[in-house]
Amino acid sequence: MKILILNGPNLNLLGLRQPEVYGQTTLDEIHQACQAHGKMLGVEVKCAQSNHEGELIDWIHKTRATPTGIVLNAGAYTHTSIALMDAIASVERPVVEVHLSNIHQREEFRHTSYISKVARGMICGLGPHGYVLAMDALAQVLKNES
Amino acid sequence: MKILILNGPNLNLLGLRQPEVYGQTTLDEIHQACQAHGKMLGVEVKCAQSNHEGELIDWIHKTRATPTGIVLNAGAYTHTSIALMDAIASVERPVVEVHLSNIHQREEFRHTSYISKVARGMICGLGPHGYVLAMDALAQVLKNES
Amino acid sequence: MKILILNGPNLNLLGLRQPEVYGQTTLDEIHQACQAHGKMLGVEVKCAQSNHEGELIDWIHKTRATPTGIVLNAGAYTHTSIALMDAIASVERPVVEVHLSNIHQREEFRHTSYISKVARGMICGLGPHGYVLAMDALAQVLKNES
Amino acid sequence: MKILILNGPNLNLLGLRQPEVYGQTTLDEIHQACQAHGKMLGVEVKCAQSNHEGELIDWIHKTRATPTGIVLNAGAYTHTSIALMDAIASVERPVVEVHLSNIHQREEFRHTSYISKVARGMICGLGPHGYVLAMDALAQVLKNES
Amino acid sequence: MKILILNGPNLNLLGLRQPEVYGQTTLDEIHQACQAHGKMLGVEVKCAQSNHEGELIDWIHKTRATPTGIVLNAGAYTHTSIALMDAIASVERPVVEVHLSNIHQREEFRHTSYISKVARGMICGLGPHGYVLAMDALAQVLKNES
Amino acid sequence: MKILILNGPNLNLLGLRQPEVYGQTTLDEIHQACQAHGKMLGVEVKCAQSNHEGELIDWIHKTRATPTGIVLNAGAYTHTSIALMDAIASVERPVVEVHLSNIHQREEFRHTSYISKVARGMICGLGPHGYVLAMDALAQVLKNES
Amino acid sequence: MKILILNGPNLNLLGLRQPEVYGQTTLDEIHQACQAHGKMLGVEVKCAQSNHEGELIDWIHKTRATPTGIVLNAGAYTHTSIALMDAIASVERPVVEVHLSNIHQREEFRHTSYISKVARGMICGLGPHGYVLAMDALAQVLKNES
Amino acid sequence: MKILILNGPNLNLLGLRQPEVYGQTTLDEIHQACQAHGKMLGVEVKCAQSNHEGELIDWIHKTRATPTGIVLNAGAYTHTSIALMDAIASVERPVVEVHLSNIHQREEFRHTSYISKVARGMICGLGPHGYVLAMDALAQVLKNES
Amino acid sequence: MKILILNGPNLNLLGLRQPEVYGQTTLDEIHQACQAHGKMLGVEVKCAQSNHEGELIDWIHKTRATPTGIVLNAGAYTHTSIALMDAIASVERPVVEVHLSNIHQREEFRHTSYISKVARGMICGLGPHGYVLAMDALAQVLKNES
Amino acid sequence: MKILILNGPNLNLLGLRQPEVYGQTTLDEIHQACQAHGKMLGVEVKCAQSNHEGELIDWIHKTRATPTGIVLNAGAYTHTSIALMDAIASVERPVVEVHLSNIHQREEFRHTSYISKVARGMICGLGPHGYVLAMDALAQVLKNES
Amino acid sequence: MKILILNGPNLNLLGLRQPEVYGQTTLDEIHQACQAHGKMLGVEVKCAQSNHEGELIDWIHKTRATPTGIVLNAGAYTHTSIALMDAIASVERPVVEVHLSNIHQREEFRHTSYISKVARGMICGLGPHGYVLAMDALAQVLKNES
Amino acid sequence: MKILILNGPNLNLLGLRQPEVYGQTTLDEIHQACQAHGKMLGVEVKCAQSNHEGELIDWIHKTRATPTGIVLNAGAYTHTSIALMDAIASVERPVVEVHLSNIHQREEFRHTSYISKVARGMICGLGPHGYVLAMDALAQVLKNES
Repeated sequence: MKILILNGPNLNLLGLRQPEVYGQTTLDEIHQACQAHGKMLGVEVKCAQSNHEGELIDWIHKTRATPTGIVLNAGAYTHTSIALMDAIASVERPVVEVHLSNIHQREEFRHTSYISKVARGMICGLGPHGYVLAMDALAQVLKNES
Repeated sequence: MKILILNGPNLNLLGLRQPEVYGQTTLDEIHQACQAHGKMLGVEVKCAQSNHEGELIDWIHKTRATPTGIVLNAGAYTHTSIALMDAIASVERPVVEVHLSNIHQREEFRHTSYISKVARGMICGLGPHGYVLAMDALAQVLKNES
Repeated sequence: MKILILNGPNLNLLGLRQPEVYGQTTLDEIHQACQAHGKMLGVEVKCAQSNHEGELIDWIHKTRATPTGIVLNAGAYTHTSIALMDAIASVERPVVEVHLSNIHQREEFRHTSYISKVARGMICGLGPHGYVLAMDALAQVLKNES
Repeated sequence: MKILILNGPNLNLLGLRQPEVYGQTTLDEIHQACQAHGKMLGVEVKCAQSNHEGELIDWIHKTRATPTGIVLNAGAYTHTSIALMDAIASVERPVVEVHLSNIHQREEFRHTSYISKVARGMICGLGPHGYVLAMDALAQVLKNES
Repeated sequence: MKILILNGPNLNLLGLRQPEVYGQTTLDEIHQACQAHGKMLGVEVKCAQSNHEGELIDWIHKTRATPTGIVLNAGAYTHTSIALMDAIASVERPVVEVHLSNIHQREEFRHTSYISKVARGMICGLGPHGYVLAMDALAQVLKNES
Repeated sequence: MKILILNGPNLNLLGLRQPEVYGQTTLDEIHQACQAHGKMLGVEVKCAQSNHEGELIDWIHKTRATPTGIVLNAGAYTHTSIALMDAIASVERPVVEVHLSNIHQREEFRHTSYISKVARGMICGLGPHGYVLAMDALAQVLKNES
Repeated sequence: MKILILNGPNLNLLGLRQPEVYGQTTLDEIHQACQAHGKMLGVEVKCAQSNHEGELIDWIHKTRATPTGIVLNAGAYTHTSIALMDAIASVERPVVEVHLSNIHQREEFRHTSYISKVARGMICGLGPHGYVLAMDALAQVLKNES
Repeated sequence: MKILILNGPNLNLLGLRQPEVYGQTTLDEIHQACQAHGKMLGVEVKCAQSNHEGELIDWIHKTRATPTGIVLNAGAYTHTSIALMDAIASVERPVVEVHLSNIHQREEFRHTSYISKVARGMICGLGPHGYVLAMDALAQVLKNES
Repeated sequence: MKILILNGPNLNLLGLRQPEVYGQTTLDEIHQACQAHGKMLGVEVKCAQSNHEGELIDWIHKTRATPTGIVLNAGAYTHTSIALMDAIASVERPVVEVHLSNIHQREEFRHTSYISKVARGMICGLGPHGYVLAMDALAQVLKNES
Repeated sequence: MKILILNGPNLNLLGLRQPEVYGQTTLDEIHQACQAHGKMLGVEVKCAQSNHEGELIDWIHKTRATPTGIVLNAGAYTHTSIALMDAIASVERPVVEVHLSNIHQREEFRHTSYISKVARGMICGLGPHGYVLAMDALAQVLKNES
Repeated sequence: MKILILNGPNLNLLGLRQPEVYGQTTLDEIHQACQAHGKMLGVEVKCAQSNHEGELIDWIHKTRATPTGIVLNAGAYTHTSIALMDAIASVERPVVEVHLSNIHQREEFRHTSYISKVARGMICGLGPHGYVLAMDALAQVLKNES
Repeated sequence: MKILILNGPNLNLLGLRQPEVYGQTTLDEIHQACQAHGKMLGVEVKCAQSNHEGELIDWIHKTRATPTGIVLNAGAYTHTSIALMDAIASVERPVVEVHLSNIHQREEFRHTSYISKVARGMICGLGPHGYVLAMDALAQVLKNES
């Protein structure tokens, strides 16, 4: 069992950028927490980030090789990328969508998500802890379906 | 530390109703799982359900007496009740919104949530497991803020 | 075979209220006509009215006990209550929606009905006679499906 | 007393076309049922169908000659023809609008009806039986107003 | 001559809740001020509050017994309850709508009011003093029309 | 020089239908007035009416044979017929659109006109007199352009 | 009998401005044509133009002194001025709205007219000749109603 | 302490114009009632009316000289003038918006108010009495804040 | 195997009408090209055109007699006729929609097509050649499905 | 060569009004800076401000006398005045639109500009410096086109 | 003469992904069919696919070097990429847009295409065969214009 | 002090592409003019262009290393890229948005800009000169804030 933690544009600046919105934890710290939690769950964890829509699609396509659950924080592409949504639909892997902030309390254009149309579930507003909860959820899904 | 698991209209029929949408677990089984998880977290858990908007508001008001985190699945009132939203804003307790199904994959009128405008976070599409994850999230929030 | 005649908010004032819109027949008179028509059809008829959304939901849930067709005039809740709609979907009983006036000739917000999304059919604009026609329709449905 | 049963475009294919939506009864069978019911009510019944908007208007205009109630299933013209609506307003005859399926459960563009703006009432979702109920309703209206 | 001061959901927490929006006066203090002002105007004053939409409707229906003016702050139901609006239309009593805050300066969904469609007038943004002004307005209306 | 007076659906009932909206003059009387005015202007006048959209298109196509100005009251097709609009664009004849009532003071769906997108001008709200004014306008246009 | 020819903003530049839209006739020439036509009709004609919304309102108010028909080309205020619309409603004089160009063939924001909501009729797209036709129409209206 | 009673377009015709909407009291009578009420409150009252948007802005700017509360009935400019709204924001004086009729029961374009976005409060639907209530409200505001 | 080439309103004027939009080929020339291409494909080709919506429906209904593919250019009815769409759904024949011009580069109301909701595919913007390509597509479809 | 610096409503209060939005520079100081910059560019500069829409139109019309570039900050009229836009189109002078604040970061109704539809370019969000940049731009335009 | 077959995001998974929507042919098989058809037409064919918007733009820019027709299936970027649309407009090469499925029968956000605003034509819903038809169309276009 | 001139998709073809919209200056020439102007202002200037959204984000992130003002012409990404907007917000550098053409005079989808929501100011419609003006503006901003 494998989990891919995939992060979209500008998340590389996490902790360094607008801490009043996104908190002070860096992306590295989140990735470490996910690795640690993965060990506890007994799943292999891979972490990645890209500012390029196409690269994110490529990452998702690669999960076709091994059964993998995906924790996806697509950042701003959440609201604009039908291509990412199609990529998820193409690979038929379980995806849990994560957002650090509660996107429904921000600008109107952040209220809709193309990812939500194909993801199993969504967790938002719970900060870095949301990644860990999403891994728990994926573990449960993968257990139920295996 | 206390957690209130609060469920809205028609959730009393859970497991008995539209299992293809909501699964086969009954509300009682969910409440029992929450009680069990509460023991593990060391928090007192109270579970309640009502089909009456006013009664749900009354329940939320009562949390003013003791520090309480709220796991709220407001069912259909999620999409129509500004009064419930105002009730949450009034008591200033941390709320995690839960939905069994991924509401963004259902009818358009289920895509918006008044609860989301005042809740800390939202978890949806992860079935009964979502309640347990929400309790974890609340426990984390309560720990951080105490 | 059983039929529940269920009426929503403000219908208790029928005949006493805005007769130019709703006519001069009282709700009691309608209930009596339904009882009489029920005898003719050989079905047991139960009549109820409530101004409380939650109570209407409770009434609908109770039909899970015995096979029952429902004639539902949800009054103003027709246009605002997703919870009532969900209640109908939960119990999987045949429902015929009735309105005394032709709701499409009134204010725009009366042109949409959440009930219509789950009811078998709808009868509107035919005054108190609409209840009797709805009972005929239900009797037919129940006969076809039994 | 006279009743005109008037059917719009594509209803000539009833029973032969999309039975999962429209059922298996043919238009002829419906017309026969209406004739039979007319005898029971003691009213003369005339049945007609056309795929031509203009011809439907002509049929409605002709009711100016004798007092006639109209049962109108305008098919797809229901949603697009202001001209038909004006024709009804012009002749000032009582009209009951009928639809075999519950139009509110189909595509969004079938949710609005120009006919509803001028018809006494509407019956939908009750299959061929809806025509008979509409005749009952008209008989009642004609009795009340004569 | 009688005046009913009727308050909707969450107003029981007034003064205790979000004082930056609603001020620090409690509902009891407002009710006392209304009673005092009622004595000055020589009208009997009755005060009530409920979080239940159905109960508010019941209260309004009861005014059919004696000529009564109504000062109504329907709280969040202002923006969602067609049933309350219909209740007011049913009893044909003069109603003055009151809001403590200027609802046009808050979230967009608070900009529309179903109550306004049937109330004589509206007073908003003037805090608890608005109740007293509404009583003056009702006294004037009742005097003019008696 | 020739002028075609072309009338759309339901205008055959003019004078007989809803006189409070359309006045008491019949279509025949209007046609006679147009003939008389045509004599004064020295133009040949042809009058036609049809309830059939296709027939109106055919009439317009026929004006390709001789230079003809068109006075067009397309009735309800004004608001729904792109085909009529295309017919006018096809023949490249000057058209003056006429409406008896002021369509901007009626239902919202009568506020837009496909005819207006291709007609030289529009005259509305001036009753039968509008036809005569339109003929004057066409005479002027034809004079200027010949 | 009197007619006021009232012109709104920028019409003072007529003939000098965008001739491809508005033609080459100046406002003075139009006013002279109106004076000439007034003599023929036996009515006193007054012509005025202003770029100031308030001044146009003042002009309309002044018609309260003598029975006056108004030919109004409100220019750009047509689409934005509720105040002008209210001024017309206040004085209860017959108004015929005129536009040189066919406003329905220009930018979308020129397709709606507040003036049309209170004017007897509208003439557009017929150039300077439209003023003369409007005077004919007013003369007819004034004759019919005197 | 000073109060400015400021009236917008067409209010000079009050009492003379559409009495079924605006009542029979003239603007002079309202101004006199305000003067009388001002004496009772011990505040200096100044009354003004203009049909010119720019002049109303000038009047508001002048209140920068002395502390002044403003009772503003901006008439039709209420719904169209961002400039008036900006003028109020510029001078930072307390404003109570007044409307004689209940603007929410009239045409849709009268349901929104730019003034409401910057005024302390709004009183509508209470006729000329609304001005007096607004003065009471201002007196209270000025007392609280001095 | 049979193919019906069916053309809607105003297409009879092709080549004669607005050549800058529709090109200079006449409808006859297109029909001849289709006949020629049909011979090459070994299918019987029938060509028809009508300005009457009802007649087009009748033509489509007739294809129920023999297996027939349909190449349909419904002209302006493309954007307004639900009845035509229903006719296609009724007969369950493969339809390829054709437009001479690229309808997405023209007026907004030409961007939506009711035909597209039931046709196999659509070809637009490729001029008369589009008919031939549509025949190729149909031939392919018919071959695959036979 | 001449440049007109034209300012709309409420800009006379610049520096005195809402400094957090508009800064602390007064309009006089801006006008002086423009005069100074004009000397440097060798163009004659004229500065004007008015709260009256009509007066602004008159100012624009006057530029027909001499070749003049216009720097226009129309204030709130930017968003509501089609008449100002038409005035600019009438005189065919190059206009550069200026706003002190970035209007796209303020209320939604400030996001659209009628001026932008006819101005050469727009500069916003750069404070008083924007006027000077606009003058540079105009100088460049006038140089290129002379 | 050259033709570029250009495919957008996720099309690399064709045949492997959602066969019920996109069929079972792989992209390689389509490219081979295009090469084969190119030989028949006597044109050089180049095939490419990318998940990166920027790379697709680069590919289009490169066609500036030699006269090339483009068959473009931009996948999900069809509905979101103005940049791709601008790239096409920049190079002024004939483009035929292709979609395997009939995009008008899928989710609403797939009904609009930025590509359609600049492409010669569009072919959709005809599966892999659509590529071949598009090549025929391009060959025709290139022949006509050379 | 440093300034980054950053250009988005298709701007590499400037001068070569649609000169009637974008003029004849090439991007190289603009970059040279910016370098020259930078020398005059005494700031180091760096110029870059990319067709890849992700690369533009990377460029913006890099400005975190040294205090840098950004002149950004994001081309088509202006209207679609929330990710670019977030990148700007992340680095907290002053940005002046530039467009060669006046985007408000082009297609509706070019009227909104995500960049405008976070940029200091915007300059559009002034051609290549706009870049130079933007540099002046940045120099001023950087001077004021240092």
